Amino acid sequence: MNDLTAIPRTTIERLPMYLRCLLEAQSQRMPIVNSQLLAEMCGTNAAQVRKDFSYLGELGTRGIGYDVNALVAHISTVLGITELRRAVLVGYGRFGSALLGYPGFAERGFEIVAVIDADPAKVGTDVDGLTVADTADLERVVTDTGAEIAILATPANATQSIADRLVGAGIRGILNLAPVRLNVPESVAVRQVCLSTELQVLSFHLAQNAL
Amino acid sequence: MNDLTAIPRTTIERLPMYLRCLLEAQSQRMPIVNSQLLAEMCGTNAAQVRKDFSYLGELGTRGIGYDVNALVAHISTVLGITELRRAVLVGYGRFGSALLGYPGFAERGFEIVAVIDADPAKVGTDVDGLTVADTADLERVVTDTGAEIAILATPANATQSIADRLVGAGIRGILNLAPVRLNVPESVAVRQVCLSTELQVLSFHLAQNAL
Repeated sequence: MNDLTAIPRTTIERLPMYLRCLLEAQSQRMPIVNSQLLAEMCGTNAAQVRKDFSYLGELGTRGIGYDVNALVAHISTVLGITELRRAVLVGYGRFGSALLGYPGFAERGFEIVAVIDADPAKVGTDVDGLTVADTADLERVVTDTGAEIAILATPANATQSIADRLVGAGIRGILNLAPVRLNVPESVAVRQVCLSTELQVLSFHLAQNAL
Repeated sequence: MNDLTAIPRTTIERLPMYLRCLLEAQSQRMPIVNSQLLAEMCGTNAAQVRKDFSYLGELGTRGIGYDVNALVAHISTVLGITELRRAVLVGYGRFGSALLGYPGFAERGFEIVAVIDADPAKVGTDVDGLTVADTADLERVVTDTGAEIAILATPANATQSIADRLVGAGIRGILNLAPVRLNVPESVAVRQVCLSTELQVLSFHLAQNAL
């Protein structure tokens, strides 16, 4: 395999989209797709598809296209989701509870194996087949479940200290939904999703278009 | 003001973070910040701050720094959030209901003025002071509320047709939380948030770090 650490960030961010479109092609029993068709399915252009895939190695056959099954397997391997990855959800408020019910996680390679909250009223209750664990037991929960990823839906002011403890317990990837920028060691991958930021970026475009 | 349409996308995406840190500085009654301090607050570096701000015009005083109040006002203007912007929330499922309770929206310049759902069991019910409107009345709701932005938490297969109707009704910005890529006219700004995609990008980094 090519040196995948050299893949541009924007290409990595498009791989999930390609995989989703390829799974759709697979479900329609299409054996082969070319870059033009895949681009149409994904809403991008063929040159972009070919460029992105060039980072993944020699994948297609010129003039024919890509073998759908082989490409699904290859991108799943690159994304490290050939087996379910285990995630803990920290913070079972209104947002956290919605995340637990998010149907996309299991389909896309992830299993939420534990829910953690600091509220004594929630600790010990059953939620979607899991028992809410106490934040005090966070390290033990991470160890016992073998979780690698944490999804943080914690109050802003608690988030950094929770993140520190998760990293100390062995968590290697964090999806942070709290509106706080995290400081973690370089070896830990972080993705930050802030819906207010997204709205402000939208607002910027609205303001510029109105001029 | 400079030509803001020339601001790089990555700079635009950092403006909300700068604004958040500047509001924090304001709340601590700091009259002036320099790029080094602001960078530390935001978790970036001073050169990045200066580069980003250079796109916004002549803002600071060399050797002194930036006037916090003036910078808050300026970035708020650039982001178009000096007045509350109105948004409709479409899709009041588990995820949609969590979004309605998201405390960051009002603080950050946005007001959810209507909730729309297709489920007869939800239509007409009161949720956080709003009455759930019927998807059939979507166009009227957009017109009556004067909403400019739509937040989509709809089932994947309904999302494109809902988006088409919203655009027809005058919506100019869409925050799409459904795992579907939208096709909309170029004049409509779209931000796509897909949590499964974020997890897959995390997984990529985990897979690479494990090699």
